[in-house]
Amino acid sequence: MAVYNFSAGPAMLPKKVMEKAQAEFCNYQNSECGVMELSHRGKLYAPIIARAEANVRELMNISDDYAVLFVQGGASMQFCMLAMNLLNGNTADYAETGVWSNKAAKEAKLFGNVNICCSSKETKYDHIPAFDTWNLSDNAAYLHITSNNTVAGTQYRTFPKSNAPLIADMSSDIMSRVINVNDFGMIYAGAQKNLGPSGFALVIIRKDLMERVAATVPTMLKYTTYAENESMFNTPPTYAVYMLALVTDYFKEVGGIAAMEKVNDAKAKLLYDYLDSTSFYTTPVQKDSRSRMNVVFRTPSEELDAKFVADAKACGLTDLKGHRLVGGCRASIYNAMPIEGVQALIEFMKKFEKEA
Amino acid sequence: MAVYNFSAGPAMLPKKVMEKAQAEFCNYQNSECGVMELSHRGKLYAPIIARAEANVRELMNISDDYAVLFVQGGASMQFCMLAMNLLNGNTADYAETGVWSNKAAKEAKLFGNVNICCSSKETKYDHIPAFDTWNLSDNAAYLHITSNNTVAGTQYRTFPKSNAPLIADMSSDIMSRVINVNDFGMIYAGAQKNLGPSGFALVIIRKDLMERVAATVPTMLKYTTYAENESMFNTPPTYAVYMLALVTDYFKEVGGIAAMEKVNDAKAKLLYDYLDSTSFYTTPVQKDSRSRMNVVFRTPSEELDAKFVADAKACGLTDLKGHRLVGGCRASIYNAMPIEGVQALIEFMKKFEKEA
Repeated sequence: MAVYNFSAGPAMLPKKVMEKAQAEFCNYQNSECGVMELSHRGKLYAPIIARAEANVRELMNISDDYAVLFVQGGASMQFCMLAMNLLNGNTADYAETGVWSNKAAKEAKLFGNVNICCSSKETKYDHIPAFDTWNLSDNAAYLHITSNNTVAGTQYRTFPKSNAPLIADMSSDIMSRVINVNDFGMIYAGAQKNLGPSGFALVIIRKDLMERVAATVPTMLKYTTYAENESMFNTPPTYAVYMLALVTDYFKEVGGIAAMEKVNDAKAKLLYDYLDSTSFYTTPVQKDSRSRMNVVFRTPSEELDAKFVADAKACGLTDLKGHRLVGGCRASIYNAMPIEGVQALIEFMKKFEKEA
Repeated sequence: MAVYNFSAGPAMLPKKVMEKAQAEFCNYQNSECGVMELSHRGKLYAPIIARAEANVRELMNISDDYAVLFVQGGASMQFCMLAMNLLNGNTADYAETGVWSNKAAKEAKLFGNVNICCSSKETKYDHIPAFDTWNLSDNAAYLHITSNNTVAGTQYRTFPKSNAPLIADMSSDIMSRVINVNDFGMIYAGAQKNLGPSGFALVIIRKDLMERVAATVPTMLKYTTYAENESMFNTPPTYAVYMLALVTDYFKEVGGIAAMEKVNDAKAKLLYDYLDSTSFYTTPVQKDSRSRMNVVFRTPSEELDAKFVADAKACGLTDLKGHRLVGGCRASIYNAMPIEGVQALIEFMKKFEKEA
């Protein structure tokens, strides 16, 4: 039975990547050692981390004005780290569009003032507030957004303009669509959705912003430490970075981000078109804010939601349960989910509706 | 050709563990998903992280007075995190026995006062200073030691007594010998030497010490966050923890830490006995401080050191170069290095001496 894993993350990886990693797991390039056994300072490993960075730069068209860093701790560590490095007692604007943007704002409060410049909390985060309603601070240190909200199932279609550097948590839609990195001061993303296994965050930061980093920030929490040492001040998460190298090799092979975006659009359109065609399933998300990565929906009752998740699993469609904070169902359809997975899901949904 | 990898870390892992991980890499327990693709909140992954913790507790005989945590960032992140959590502007004693203990002390200075209570710096860290010469503070918040010094090749045979909680960086000798965890306030270790791949630190902390953690510490840097959420407040480094579960399964299978210590002692004795029997190779480390994990030595010249490392590599004995800060040669012989590897190294050393 073909299995399609709709987990919100850690999530499925491209089959071809998994098979390549398996094949060389114990014996990388005839060294009789696995990649995870290699010294990070050795001749075999150095090209791997260099390739991961080069691939990221090429795929996202990143200029030399930006540093590309691999930092352990996931996006949650970035919530405090970015404020620790870039806020310095000043005020930052935070757009409140869901659970994760709230967590980011909470950590920033430890290092300065936070202005919640907009919020969709009152309507349960069912949309991205229109930019012309945002209440931006004068002289904000930065403006923080969450480009895709994994729990609520919303996503920015365009990005706000502001005088302050724009900082985006792109954990759940990085490399899923073409963006202009130059529009951002910093982009960060936990790896475990579109990029590879869990265990690090990708950080893309405009180099001039690092001038703000104070000497009192601990070494491992300073962006400058990573930038000055090619993310090798200490031992990086070598195997996770190797997987990133393989995943980004694959992205290049299949045509880069633009090609991926096309497939992602097609997958999302299939699923939303189906949802719009039936009244059995409903989605709480406003149309113009719908995420192309995390599609949230409900059946007519909580009991049926639970039965849907269980029956789907029995048919090889796994991890369709909504986030524990909101319930319902959720299909995460990141880069690695083939369109066949979405087609199989829709077939199952039709059958489930008929039999319910 | 059999290859023995003497890397100081990331280091070789038990062959059996690598083969098991490879076999189920793409299909864990018939799920058609690899472990790195599994949701950390799912039914398949939860038992893995629970088993990793249970194995650590069983192998090290850890009581319920201690929390066992998995924290991203390696030991270097612990240098600041422990001070951020436990120092609070007070004074801590740091034993200066090498590069890594210095780095730990440096980060602590950001959060309080550091008293260097002893140092072997003047003799290039060639020994662990005798405890009766240590200048301990009254009312220190804690006493910090580095139980094994990877670069200098020294190791504590016994541990100092102090009124303050003893905190040990055991990155390079954790689980290599039987210790009494109750003698310590906290133990931490980067995983990539004896425990698994790089990407996290194991932290074992006496629960009462966590009462010191201030509310102003960022969420991801608080030990309490990990303790209250079984290291799953956010997505843990799922694959690295899975490897820890496999490695510790293996340790249990082969008789636990006592059995491992016996083999480690035998391996180290073989190598040091040989070093003592020849004047071609020398080791700068004082006899009673010799590390059983990292055996440092030199040939008569830097040129021969380089030739030794290159020729050994050609014979399948890899990564014998000393740390870039000190030069020379180094054989790291952690738990996963079989005694056959040490025997092969000695045979090579004899041959190299004869031909030099």
